[in-house]
Amino acid sequence: MVKVKKITKSILNEVIRKRPANSFKGTYGKIVLIGGSQNFGGAIVMASLAAVYSGAGLVTTVTDPSNQTSLHDWLPEAMFVDWNQFDHAKPIIEAADVIVIGPGLGTDNHAFDLLKAVFQIVKKGQKLIIDGSALTLLASNNLPLPKDSLNILTPHQMEWQRVSGIKIADQTPDANQKAAEQLHAIVVVKSHRTQVYEGTDIFENTGGTPAQATGGMGDTLAGMVGGFTAQFKDTPKAVLAAVYSHSAIADKLAEKQYVVLPHQISESLPKFMHKNQAE
Amino acid sequence: MVKVKKITKSILNEVIRKRPANSFKGTYGKIVLIGGSQNFGGAIVMASLAAVYSGAGLVTTVTDPSNQTSLHDWLPEAMFVDWNQFDHAKPIIEAADVIVIGPGLGTDNHAFDLLKAVFQIVKKGQKLIIDGSALTLLASNNLPLPKDSLNILTPHQMEWQRVSGIKIADQTPDANQKAAEQLHAIVVVKSHRTQVYEGTDIFENTGGTPAQATGGMGDTLAGMVGGFTAQFKDTPKAVLAAVYSHSAIADKLAEKQYVVLPHQISESLPKFMHKNQAE
Amino acid sequence: MVKVKKITKSILNEVIRKRPANSFKGTYGKIVLIGGSQNFGGAIVMASLAAVYSGAGLVTTVTDPSNQTSLHDWLPEAMFVDWNQFDHAKPIIEAADVIVIGPGLGTDNHAFDLLKAVFQIVKKGQKLIIDGSALTLLASNNLPLPKDSLNILTPHQMEWQRVSGIKIADQTPDANQKAAEQLHAIVVVKSHRTQVYEGTDIFENTGGTPAQATGGMGDTLAGMVGGFTAQFKDTPKAVLAAVYSHSAIADKLAEKQYVVLPHQISESLPKFMHKNQAE
Amino acid sequence: MVKVKKITKSILNEVIRKRPANSFKGTYGKIVLIGGSQNFGGAIVMASLAAVYSGAGLVTTVTDPSNQTSLHDWLPEAMFVDWNQFDHAKPIIEAADVIVIGPGLGTDNHAFDLLKAVFQIVKKGQKLIIDGSALTLLASNNLPLPKDSLNILTPHQMEWQRVSGIKIADQTPDANQKAAEQLHAIVVVKSHRTQVYEGTDIFENTGGTPAQATGGMGDTLAGMVGGFTAQFKDTPKAVLAAVYSHSAIADKLAEKQYVVLPHQISESLPKFMHKNQAE
Repeated sequence: MVKVKKITKSILNEVIRKRPANSFKGTYGKIVLIGGSQNFGGAIVMASLAAVYSGAGLVTTVTDPSNQTSLHDWLPEAMFVDWNQFDHAKPIIEAADVIVIGPGLGTDNHAFDLLKAVFQIVKKGQKLIIDGSALTLLASNNLPLPKDSLNILTPHQMEWQRVSGIKIADQTPDANQKAAEQLHAIVVVKSHRTQVYEGTDIFENTGGTPAQATGGMGDTLAGMVGGFTAQFKDTPKAVLAAVYSHSAIADKLAEKQYVVLPHQISESLPKFMHKNQAE
Repeated sequence: MVKVKKITKSILNEVIRKRPANSFKGTYGKIVLIGGSQNFGGAIVMASLAAVYSGAGLVTTVTDPSNQTSLHDWLPEAMFVDWNQFDHAKPIIEAADVIVIGPGLGTDNHAFDLLKAVFQIVKKGQKLIIDGSALTLLASNNLPLPKDSLNILTPHQMEWQRVSGIKIADQTPDANQKAAEQLHAIVVVKSHRTQVYEGTDIFENTGGTPAQATGGMGDTLAGMVGGFTAQFKDTPKAVLAAVYSHSAIADKLAEKQYVVLPHQISESLPKFMHKNQAE
Repeated sequence: MVKVKKITKSILNEVIRKRPANSFKGTYGKIVLIGGSQNFGGAIVMASLAAVYSGAGLVTTVTDPSNQTSLHDWLPEAMFVDWNQFDHAKPIIEAADVIVIGPGLGTDNHAFDLLKAVFQIVKKGQKLIIDGSALTLLASNNLPLPKDSLNILTPHQMEWQRVSGIKIADQTPDANQKAAEQLHAIVVVKSHRTQVYEGTDIFENTGGTPAQATGGMGDTLAGMVGGFTAQFKDTPKAVLAAVYSHSAIADKLAEKQYVVLPHQISESLPKFMHKNQAE
Repeated sequence: MVKVKKITKSILNEVIRKRPANSFKGTYGKIVLIGGSQNFGGAIVMASLAAVYSGAGLVTTVTDPSNQTSLHDWLPEAMFVDWNQFDHAKPIIEAADVIVIGPGLGTDNHAFDLLKAVFQIVKKGQKLIIDGSALTLLASNNLPLPKDSLNILTPHQMEWQRVSGIKIADQTPDANQKAAEQLHAIVVVKSHRTQVYEGTDIFENTGGTPAQATGGMGDTLAGMVGGFTAQFKDTPKAVLAAVYSHSAIADKLAEKQYVVLPHQISESLPKFMHKNQAE
């Protein structure tokens, strides 16, 4: 049986490094986030907010045109692409270091077409984070993961059941680890104590609060995983640091709040990361 | 003559419980809010804000499409459904724990059609909060309340006159209690000292300030009643706690403000509820 | 020669009264603000913000439909009416205690039609505040002021030249007073030291800072005059209190800011008015 | 070899003067900002925010109509013009003290047409700030700079390569100075240590932090250069003060933040400028 390692505060110092003086926005990665139907526009806004506030260099959001104004109201720092104009989105996706697909994507035909198109163009050296309805879509369509990108899945337990075929009750660390390894993916199974599977390693988060039990928390985490992996070289550790930071900020806010709003976590990132960076 | 019980701070500890560690967003309820015409979009935004900030697990807002961006600017955490697409709204309403209908709904034919459609599909186990123009519509059309849902009405005194037929001058606790009992509904009659009628019980709030005398206060209360009844099992007590919290937060803000803005009450909820929760 | 009286802090206590416990939103007046073309939408948003934050009971904004979302993003508390639907606006204007017309109204034909339509329906007991391009329009078209409403004009010096025919260099207190008296209007001539003309009285403000020299200050003042006259019985004194409060808040903010943004004045009103109310 | 002078805190006191009591918004300049395609709307919002918060008297933003609401959500203080209506924009540009063109402008035909049209109408006494994609457009089309306006270019190093033909590796102070002098322009070459070229003078900034390495920083600087040159008479010094203030605010924020958001710099300007003004 594989040993489950704890994700603790020490991961922050290993990952979040003082920025070198002579760096520029390209140093911190290009990230594209794809999602946000007319019904779920808030999800992609929250994911994009997390990506920008965690320090990604350049952020582009590919979404339904009805979300353009909401995006810029929260985040003038993000660029916008209409998800009906794939010709326009394609070169931006191809040039990205990190692609996040799924927050508020929905499960209709257009969403599935987008998912397939992205899967076809991602390539070696790119990190692909698959979240939310993108996971449901790939499970229900038996869509294989892209071969060349480094794939990171961020399901909650029900989505993980769909993707892995393992029922929630049977989602033991061992079973999950084997399924993740077969997928050649880093898998973040979100729950009360989120677990991360990477190769033969299993990690379990030590933070998290029931004040986080509200819509949008997962979208925020997906955006943070994007922002962290865009900036920090060691991708598995960057994922662990994103998972830990998400819950640690929530734990801190929950000392004074009955419920923590997802956007508050993003807005807390710049100060949290400053405090916890290594020299 | 029925005794009028005071609603005091003690209701908060009875209702607002420390959240169990192993809970998730489903634990805190699904809530759908329906309202917000092109003219009154701010009302449904304010009600939705109150629902999310009081801690409801998943919030969907069914409104005029012209309000989509305003909703997400205030609240990326809420999902959006165009109220012209009832096919899309229907399964979400059917799966909800709580439905709030009325804030900014308006009184035109489309509004009335929506109200009737909602009344037809609500069922046992669901809580239905009827507010604002929905009350005017049901009164003017003699629309009977749904039989199976737990119905909560939140009229101001003039709306209560329309619904109950009791003129404002004649709205004594006894008269109101009888009318509420006949309706088999929990009735919240909003005024300087808001009263709550539930079966044979009559409750009167002890808080409230003239700084609250501004448009949108009622919409915020309706959203809070939604958020509280979605999370807390004992529905009558949850209503009392929402009423008390609404006025207690306003009283606190009014110690420093000549007028209290409704959205400030919602934004104060997470800290207020944290302070007043029972272990 | 008429004596110029100083507007000082003592006006606040005369006007801003502690609100009676048993009051409701109707107690604090219904106000309609009309303005905001596609180009100048921010102006009517700023005026509306000032009206709501000064404590008006019910605020409706009649504006270009392209401003609907901006209005609700700043102010879910305000109701919205498309200014192309005058049938819809008319009964709301007729039922209002105060009408503000002009902020961002523009000077095209549609704007002039609106101005004429409003002038035709206002009646005794209503207060009509005429600001910005509405003043330019009435001057260039020799449109007479309505006979029955209590009219309040809020020109800057160039607008006052257009309306009164008095060149800026000749705008002495005496000349201005005579012109204002002939118009049977309260006139607020905005400048470094704003003056207010009411009948035979001349008042000069004692506050104001060059940090206020930025677009939108006048729109905010017009909204405040609306909010104050909606709530406080003595209209001339309410105007003086609005003028004084506007500059006193700016003076306070300018102790720490090189420039004061108009929306900051509005957001400071609830606390400022609380501090300066009479018991 | 020309000596490189350091840009230090002392520039602030030379430029930012206590405002004279008897001044008005015209005193602080009219500024027009042109940019913001559908994809890059946030850029022109951020530039406009910087212009208003640095104290420009009157700000008009000429942009894609899809950005109208985002602009007013951040900035009701700015006026809006649809960039497809050049007839409407033209007199406003002609009357401006300062024109900023480029933030989020894009490089399509419409953008190029706008750039050419602006170059044709600017005239003596006006300051023209050319930023972002406007620089790419003029380089790729060999468009000569306007003869009569005072031109200020704000390229990053790659844009400067395009404009000057000097490869990044060869961008020595001497080479840059000669190229800038030939262009008869003030050139701000943005990098880790931003340099300013003006005639035979070379200046190098002493502030700046890697926390600024995020999209939108340049747009904010362009807006600040606009705001400072609109208000302060000595244009070269106003440019230096804008460059220094931008980095000094970022340095201060970076004492507590891992990443600094561009809009935070703008929002910090009123207090920063107050602290650093000369009596």
